[in-house]
Amino acid sequence: MENNKTVIFALTSSVELAKEICTHAKLTLGKSEVKHFADGEILVEINESVRGKNVYLVQSTNAPVSSNIMEVLIAIDACKRASANTINIVMPYFGYARQDRKAKPRQPITSKLIAGLLETAGATRIITCELHASQIQGFFDIPADDLSAICIIAKYLKDKGLNKDVVVVSPDHGGTTRARKLADLLQAPLAIIDKRRPKPNVAEAMNLIGEVDGKKAIVVDDIVDTAGTLMTGIDMLYAKGATEVYTACIHGVLSGPAIERIENSKIVEFICTNTIDQNENTPKLAKMTVLSVGQLFATTIDQIENSKSVSDAIKQFNEGF
Amino acid sequence: MENNKTVIFALTSSVELAKEICTHAKLTLGKSEVKHFADGEILVEINESVRGKNVYLVQSTNAPVSSNIMEVLIAIDACKRASANTINIVMPYFGYARQDRKAKPRQPITSKLIAGLLETAGATRIITCELHASQIQGFFDIPADDLSAICIIAKYLKDKGLNKDVVVVSPDHGGTTRARKLADLLQAPLAIIDKRRPKPNVAEAMNLIGEVDGKKAIVVDDIVDTAGTLMTGIDMLYAKGATEVYTACIHGVLSGPAIERIENSKIVEFICTNTIDQNENTPKLAKMTVLSVGQLFATTIDQIENSKSVSDAIKQFNEGF
Amino acid sequence: MENNKTVIFALTSSVELAKEICTHAKLTLGKSEVKHFADGEILVEINESVRGKNVYLVQSTNAPVSSNIMEVLIAIDACKRASANTINIVMPYFGYARQDRKAKPRQPITSKLIAGLLETAGATRIITCELHASQIQGFFDIPADDLSAICIIAKYLKDKGLNKDVVVVSPDHGGTTRARKLADLLQAPLAIIDKRRPKPNVAEAMNLIGEVDGKKAIVVDDIVDTAGTLMTGIDMLYAKGATEVYTACIHGVLSGPAIERIENSKIVEFICTNTIDQNENTPKLAKMTVLSVGQLFATTIDQIENSKSVSDAIKQFNEGF
Amino acid sequence: MENNKTVIFALTSSVELAKEICTHAKLTLGKSEVKHFADGEILVEINESVRGKNVYLVQSTNAPVSSNIMEVLIAIDACKRASANTINIVMPYFGYARQDRKAKPRQPITSKLIAGLLETAGATRIITCELHASQIQGFFDIPADDLSAICIIAKYLKDKGLNKDVVVVSPDHGGTTRARKLADLLQAPLAIIDKRRPKPNVAEAMNLIGEVDGKKAIVVDDIVDTAGTLMTGIDMLYAKGATEVYTACIHGVLSGPAIERIENSKIVEFICTNTIDQNENTPKLAKMTVLSVGQLFATTIDQIENSKSVSDAIKQFNEGF
Amino acid sequence: MENNKTVIFALTSSVELAKEICTHAKLTLGKSEVKHFADGEILVEINESVRGKNVYLVQSTNAPVSSNIMEVLIAIDACKRASANTINIVMPYFGYARQDRKAKPRQPITSKLIAGLLETAGATRIITCELHASQIQGFFDIPADDLSAICIIAKYLKDKGLNKDVVVVSPDHGGTTRARKLADLLQAPLAIIDKRRPKPNVAEAMNLIGEVDGKKAIVVDDIVDTAGTLMTGIDMLYAKGATEVYTACIHGVLSGPAIERIENSKIVEFICTNTIDQNENTPKLAKMTVLSVGQLFATTIDQIENSKSVSDAIKQFNEGF
Amino acid sequence: MENNKTVIFALTSSVELAKEICTHAKLTLGKSEVKHFADGEILVEINESVRGKNVYLVQSTNAPVSSNIMEVLIAIDACKRASANTINIVMPYFGYARQDRKAKPRQPITSKLIAGLLETAGATRIITCELHASQIQGFFDIPADDLSAICIIAKYLKDKGLNKDVVVVSPDHGGTTRARKLADLLQAPLAIIDKRRPKPNVAEAMNLIGEVDGKKAIVVDDIVDTAGTLMTGIDMLYAKGATEVYTACIHGVLSGPAIERIENSKIVEFICTNTIDQNENTPKLAKMTVLSVGQLFATTIDQIENSKSVSDAIKQFNEGF
Repeated sequence: MENNKTVIFALTSSVELAKEICTHAKLTLGKSEVKHFADGEILVEINESVRGKNVYLVQSTNAPVSSNIMEVLIAIDACKRASANTINIVMPYFGYARQDRKAKPRQPITSKLIAGLLETAGATRIITCELHASQIQGFFDIPADDLSAICIIAKYLKDKGLNKDVVVVSPDHGGTTRARKLADLLQAPLAIIDKRRPKPNVAEAMNLIGEVDGKKAIVVDDIVDTAGTLMTGIDMLYAKGATEVYTACIHGVLSGPAIERIENSKIVEFICTNTIDQNENTPKLAKMTVLSVGQLFATTIDQIENSKSVSDAIKQFNEGF
Repeated sequence: MENNKTVIFALTSSVELAKEICTHAKLTLGKSEVKHFADGEILVEINESVRGKNVYLVQSTNAPVSSNIMEVLIAIDACKRASANTINIVMPYFGYARQDRKAKPRQPITSKLIAGLLETAGATRIITCELHASQIQGFFDIPADDLSAICIIAKYLKDKGLNKDVVVVSPDHGGTTRARKLADLLQAPLAIIDKRRPKPNVAEAMNLIGEVDGKKAIVVDDIVDTAGTLMTGIDMLYAKGATEVYTACIHGVLSGPAIERIENSKIVEFICTNTIDQNENTPKLAKMTVLSVGQLFATTIDQIENSKSVSDAIKQFNEGF
Repeated sequence: MENNKTVIFALTSSVELAKEICTHAKLTLGKSEVKHFADGEILVEINESVRGKNVYLVQSTNAPVSSNIMEVLIAIDACKRASANTINIVMPYFGYARQDRKAKPRQPITSKLIAGLLETAGATRIITCELHASQIQGFFDIPADDLSAICIIAKYLKDKGLNKDVVVVSPDHGGTTRARKLADLLQAPLAIIDKRRPKPNVAEAMNLIGEVDGKKAIVVDDIVDTAGTLMTGIDMLYAKGATEVYTACIHGVLSGPAIERIENSKIVEFICTNTIDQNENTPKLAKMTVLSVGQLFATTIDQIENSKSVSDAIKQFNEGF
Repeated sequence: MENNKTVIFALTSSVELAKEICTHAKLTLGKSEVKHFADGEILVEINESVRGKNVYLVQSTNAPVSSNIMEVLIAIDACKRASANTINIVMPYFGYARQDRKAKPRQPITSKLIAGLLETAGATRIITCELHASQIQGFFDIPADDLSAICIIAKYLKDKGLNKDVVVVSPDHGGTTRARKLADLLQAPLAIIDKRRPKPNVAEAMNLIGEVDGKKAIVVDDIVDTAGTLMTGIDMLYAKGATEVYTACIHGVLSGPAIERIENSKIVEFICTNTIDQNENTPKLAKMTVLSVGQLFATTIDQIENSKSVSDAIKQFNEGF
Repeated sequence: MENNKTVIFALTSSVELAKEICTHAKLTLGKSEVKHFADGEILVEINESVRGKNVYLVQSTNAPVSSNIMEVLIAIDACKRASANTINIVMPYFGYARQDRKAKPRQPITSKLIAGLLETAGATRIITCELHASQIQGFFDIPADDLSAICIIAKYLKDKGLNKDVVVVSPDHGGTTRARKLADLLQAPLAIIDKRRPKPNVAEAMNLIGEVDGKKAIVVDDIVDTAGTLMTGIDMLYAKGATEVYTACIHGVLSGPAIERIENSKIVEFICTNTIDQNENTPKLAKMTVLSVGQLFATTIDQIENSKSVSDAIKQFNEGF
Repeated sequence: MENNKTVIFALTSSVELAKEICTHAKLTLGKSEVKHFADGEILVEINESVRGKNVYLVQSTNAPVSSNIMEVLIAIDACKRASANTINIVMPYFGYARQDRKAKPRQPITSKLIAGLLETAGATRIITCELHASQIQGFFDIPADDLSAICIIAKYLKDKGLNKDVVVVSPDHGGTTRARKLADLLQAPLAIIDKRRPKPNVAEAMNLIGEVDGKKAIVVDDIVDTAGTLMTGIDMLYAKGATEVYTACIHGVLSGPAIERIENSKIVEFICTNTIDQNENTPKLAKMTVLSVGQLFATTIDQIENSKSVSDAIKQFNEGF
């Protein structure tokens, strides 16, 4: 893509990924600067003309979440007032995705709030990846592309030979659909970790649906945050005869005790993508492998800019495996 | 509630339920008429003053879905232009709830569309029941109360003694959370019907997680539409030793072959609520029991009109069991 | 028009007309499918990429009115979320046009409601034909083109020699402006059927303003619904000396007893257009002639896509006669 | 009405009427000042607290039209920012009502524009009188009450004995409905002035439908602007045998040559209302009688403030005759 | 700029300037007509197709302010409904700029109101000049370009040799920033007129900060309205030794006694621009020099239409001096 | 105020002030909890019913700015979905107030952005204090009350005898208006620190307008951030003969080197208010005096809840001095 209608800017959380997207898309990263002042206020300066251009702002909203959200809102405002033609938010990790409904009375629905804030600021499209709940697309009135990165994980595992004698494991009932998708791509069987209280007032028991005996187990989830859920049942999988346990996720939030937990666990390898930048975590977590979503986003932007079908491109991208 | 600030109107799909709500709320049903003309157009006439009043329009959007949606939109417009103070939509069954995300490229998100249409017409609040996906609350910018009716089913089963030697069964992984809620209310164990393909290209196998041997099984779901999912595994439950199989749901859509399927099955009893009017189906389906959500909605409206907590009232309502 | 920026989709009510428009505009009809499920819900699937395209959705909102409205709203939502550049609604017959004001207290203004719903869903333009009240254009904030099809009727009559020894008749005072337009095009005199109560409590009397003696009378209206108004005075016209009575309208709603009434009347010919599809009525009404608005809409779309004046094109189109 | 929740302010064009409304409604006129500066800018100062109050701004938008519109928009902004509870626009004469559709390509629809401006500024309701086209109600999304003042004219005529041996005359086809309403109230017959071109290229002929011979004719219209239309046919009415010709209208715009025309005509009496202030015209037009709409508006405001039906009150008000 | 995507229309207040902009931009002025009817209503007729075009409406909102505002709002509505691609408001003088905050309780913020009205009507961009308070840009959600014309004044003074032995004077503390900008461009020193009450209840004293002795003083302000502020201290400047006093402003509102005051003062020359048309004032005010902003606006429009940076162009434009 | 329609909640930045307001307003602080999770996301839980209530959320948006903004947005969303009647934002310090215009091309206007975000989330009113630029009120479409706290400072100084032999000093030209207000309240003279470049390329010189010799100088500003501006000229004031130098401001942002600078300066006392919580700074800055705005806000809320004039109450409050 060698045009002068498109410009990609990186905000603080996703500088590396934005550069990678530019390389794949054959574009030069737009000039901009994000200033954090002593009093905590932020100024985003766009240092080249965006008049009439299609702007892509790359920013995941992982920690520091509030600051990253404010950066992208301020950048949108600056681009809108500078007469950008379209303002596309590339948000590989969409923070607050898990606050997507009122779980208790008087709770906020922060996912929807964020969608509303982005639209108010002036966003005209959002491109995100592996949304925790696909209903979040409906929180937007602007077009929302939710790219699946599960095939990137599948490709990596295949290339490593991890599509033979393996079983894909969902860490809970909620993740079954996502796990089944990976199992299909690897042509592997599926197992589910079933935590249930057989009767009220009886301790929760952990069970395994499906077989792992003599196989390599690949536990897969969308988000690994404190790693509590993902860690669950690693021991059980070994006890049930798994020869090796791998874990994979799209979004490595890795907050609180996560890195220590994973490092100290019997997990053989922890695979995630760079929807969240892992440069700081890499030195601390030797068993981590980070896969890139850069090509996936570059292809998507390229199709959008050429008014071609994103779904076709994604399909082709995936069939490359 | 004996005030002259509140008026409840019934639209076509929910006349019986609206009357029942009025009885419980000690209100007289508002005078209105819905005319369907020869050319297919609809006119809703509000035949008493709503100026400054809090209007409640009761209408589920089951079949004829399009017509029922248009009725409620037209009624909202009429009330808005007649200077109602608030326009509250009581939609016990929220149609299109299952079209809540783009399952394939270029699909609509019709749930969100409906939410937007109701707000555009002038609705100021929606009160619904047992939404298929709780994220739909976030499709609204107006307050949305999603009442759970699972306790009404629990109460009925308890009163019938069906809280002893029973097991609650979820017909698939997606319904586990709802089934667990019923199991908790009945202090009964839980089982899950697990349909899985052990390996790709191998026929889907049906499995049961949990025990039903020697017990009465209560299969529970939110919606029963063509009854395909609900029917699944009735035979297997008997084969696994279930002594009787009951089925329960909130919303009895019962379209296509549903009634015939249920009637001809080995299901002992089919329990649903009147979120969708069942007057036409009752004579055709002898084993059907219809529970009323009238008191639940009346209590909710009463709390709203008195600016009291709805969640408190619901809690109290449920604790009555 | 041979471009790949424009795509026309047909929804259920206007498939034939959409095909005809495509033929005139030298475009291939876009691939889409409208599914009506057993439970009454509708799914519109757009089966080709619309990313960055100018979409035209062809759908009249005649009976089944509610269903046809829902189809177009759902299709708009699908196109909006699939990143269409513009979404143009081609609605040759705009249903609910007669509900354009509060005739009585607490009535809705459903025309305005529909306009609002279309805009909320995401429509960016509407192209319609011979609106019942031209004020309805003002119900829209998006551009609204109201094409006049009266010249198509004029051309047909001229070609048939019905511009000699004819008189154009308006069936009531409200239709005088439209009838005068046809009279001007045919260079024919005008008559008006005048139903008036000379005094209160005296029976309504029918009178004719103008002369029909020895002439062929052409009664013209915008909509013929149950045909009550149109039928009025046919006998009187013959009594006053008309040699033959023809009737013409733009929108043949033809609901209830309309077809039978016309068939059994002394009307020589009933002329209407295909703003409403007449394929089902044609076999039942031998004296019906259906004129096509296909070229008119194709020309309009062509001008829009080439950013040329629609009014110029229409003028030229009409001057062709 | 003796409450402190309601406050009525007068803007420049309607000071007299606002005072009269206050007298009928038993309210004190709110303190405000409208300043017109040397440079042409306007400042509206609200000189008493409106916090939490229901504000009524009385302003007709007759000449100077632009200035009167700006005044009301600025006053709305001031009240909105001062935390008024509701902002009700009492606009007895709604200017630009005749620019309600695109009569030619690329024309504005200024009526709709004005509606949008009032809503943007913060109006929450509009109360107007005898709208030129009733569809204009649909240009508003806020409640719009369109009061009919025809009964006030009817009452005056009756009191004067002008309901005997009279005939009500519509000056053109467009005004037939309004004329019929007056005829019904007076239990008088109806006549219509019919200007028609019997054939193209033949001079327009004026004709009378109905009988006036030996009767007093009352020509009625909604607006009298330059008085061109109203003057039409006065001579003919006398020629056809009318003994006296009276004219009546709701809105006496009386621009350009109107006053001179009427004064010099054979019209016996010119009756209008004070929806437009006539204080300046009264001395110039001896045959003018001005009827007040003050009680009508006071009753309406009273009903609104007491959350009672406006239509009931109007009915009662009219039945008083 | 020789394209057929761009069209510039002049409204009443800025016909001369619009023509000049067209000359510089090598465009033909668009055909339009503004009609003021006898009753005070306005009709703007756009007499050429604007379908798909980028429209620029040139109109300052000086006196008659209300009428000029209404003209531009109506013109926007006409262009929007005629399917213009973008509607850019060129408002060299933005009226009501001084009513930009609540100076007292219950005041309107009319600047913000105007911004809202323009956006509601359908404006997609505003280009203005030397806003009284730069915060007004933030009253708009659409892009707002606020061009500085101070360099045009600087260039004129330099060309006249008025950058030697001069001192730039701000007539009050509020105008210091603007005066400093001119001083920088002329590389001249700055002085400030300081009106202060040394103690309460002591008469306000006028003081001069800085030196003017033996120099030519150039008093500069953004707006000269009644000329009260500008006239202040002319005598004092001479008393303090100024050899000649010049005055300069961007917007010559010149209302009320302004022209007489200036003419009778000891001001040597009064310099302003044509953001407000001065054709009527020129003959009355011999010492007035009017500079043109035509090239400045033409350059800006040219850059916008070519999607180039406006700030770059302005910089280059200024560096030409 | 002893009603159950009003509830005040404290968010993180303003807990102490909220409690104080409650005490003055005789209300109990509402139960709520703000959770900051390990991954940086925030959850605001409202732990008592707000259905139908007037909610006041107290939160200044000082550092951590982004986090404090997100808290208030999330809290608004929670209250809106929980059916609060009104949602009033009490934001004593409005962060980003200085980013109120585009100072350079392509800059954001973050003040306006924040206003838009608050309105999108659902705020219905904002109450703030001593806005940096009063135009920011116009960034809101909801009512915005900007309370002045300068009288609180005046009262403190008077009580201390600092209204005799004092001079009020503005640290720059921009702050003259605010300083004059304090001078008026103290009936004291005014001085201005004038930093000017007498000629280009000559070093900026600092000058004093007015006299301080033999007097106590009180330097006053709205915000003290890094204290750079405020510190300016302290030495000069002493050199010019000031006997003591006091400094006062409303908002003590005190970021970066501010506290150290003030502590090490020859400032006798640093006076600010608790619009920003100073509990952490108090131990570090011995010469700091913190005055409370609690009563001011309590009075305002009380007037709002009783639909009385806020400006009257403030006036009365100030006259108490």
